[in-house]
Amino acid sequence: MFISFEGIDFSGKSTQIELLKDHLIDHNKKVEVLREPGGTEISEKIRNILLDNKHEMLVAEAELFLFSASRSQLVREKIRPYLEKGIYVISDRFHDSSTAYQGYGRGIPIDVVSMVHQLAIGDTIPDVTFFIDIPVGIANERKKKKSKGKLDRIELGNIEFYNRVRNGYLEIAKNEDRFKVINGSQTIETIQNQIISELELMDRR
Amino acid sequence: MFISFEGIDFSGKSTQIELLKDHLIDHNKKVEVLREPGGTEISEKIRNILLDNKHEMLVAEAELFLFSASRSQLVREKIRPYLEKGIYVISDRFHDSSTAYQGYGRGIPIDVVSMVHQLAIGDTIPDVTFFIDIPVGIANERKKKKSKGKLDRIELGNIEFYNRVRNGYLEIAKNEDRFKVINGSQTIETIQNQIISELELMDRR
Repeated sequence: MFISFEGIDFSGKSTQIELLKDHLIDHNKKVEVLREPGGTEISEKIRNILLDNKHEMLVAEAELFLFSASRSQLVREKIRPYLEKGIYVISDRFHDSSTAYQGYGRGIPIDVVSMVHQLAIGDTIPDVTFFIDIPVGIANERKKKKSKGKLDRIELGNIEFYNRVRNGYLEIAKNEDRFKVINGSQTIETIQNQIISELELMDRR
Repeated sequence: MFISFEGIDFSGKSTQIELLKDHLIDHNKKVEVLREPGGTEISEKIRNILLDNKHEMLVAEAELFLFSASRSQLVREKIRPYLEKGIYVISDRFHDSSTAYQGYGRGIPIDVVSMVHQLAIGDTIPDVTFFIDIPVGIANERKKKKSKGKLDRIELGNIEFYNRVRNGYLEIAKNEDRFKVINGSQTIETIQNQIISELELMDRR
């Protein structure tokens, strides 16, 4: 099973990924956690270009292509081989991030982004995607507390941008059954229980 | 005017680019020579990933996306601003290289490659492209002489691959008026004169 987590930064994705990983391992599953961009030697080098604060001149098109290059490599080097071996794959961000950030956020037309996804990932689409949804204001407060001034290039984007990204995620939810919106303002335990219930429901189908 | 040069490695592109640059400067033109992949700070970092010999696991899709990322950045940071100022731009490789190498060479469908070009470069298409055509056998002999064993990842590809690339270029020539096939087995002076004649012919139109 291929599971992805989505959300704006500081939504609590990483915490939930760790908890889900532990839960699956406790239930005798093999689990691999991957992150985007990154996860392979080449993809990590691409990650360094993408997150470098000096690259404020990086254009939206180049950004989409760099994420897609990293993702193409991750899908073929890691995700497909893991899935073929029956390993659970949890990815911290996947193609929906590009739809939300480079599409809805930076304005590349959604049909163009989808076409790029088709080449990058083919039919390797997550079975389920958990979108941890929090208002941009709350994300910003968490950001200020946690980061103490150390933000990467993408995190430095402004509030209107993040509102477009969040609304983009909510648009995806309207069109995709696999895409589950989770209220990220709830307690960590409540969120975890919702995620596990959803997976159990899928297992029974 | 925007001029690109294409050809398999060791076709003599670089020599002709230098000669054309000098000719244009002698005729009081402002000229900028760019190379692909590369030409901007970000694009040069992408170039390092693309040409690294350790990256033999780089998949065709990631390769196309990396070239396209580099090209998106080059078009917006350099080529468009230069052209707007009336500067002649000569590019050592441009989008036809991806059609020939990642499309015809590595097998990504040509309509998919074209669609990626559309996002990467929009309407910034060369006014004229000189394809310096030499048989793969001759390229290989020049390669052995010049390189003394130091070849980058793409140059290490095999002969069948280079035959597909060369035939791909010849396919492009059938469909694109701007794409001029120059017999690269001729002397340097003959080739240079053909290129300059072609440009003078265009100027008169």
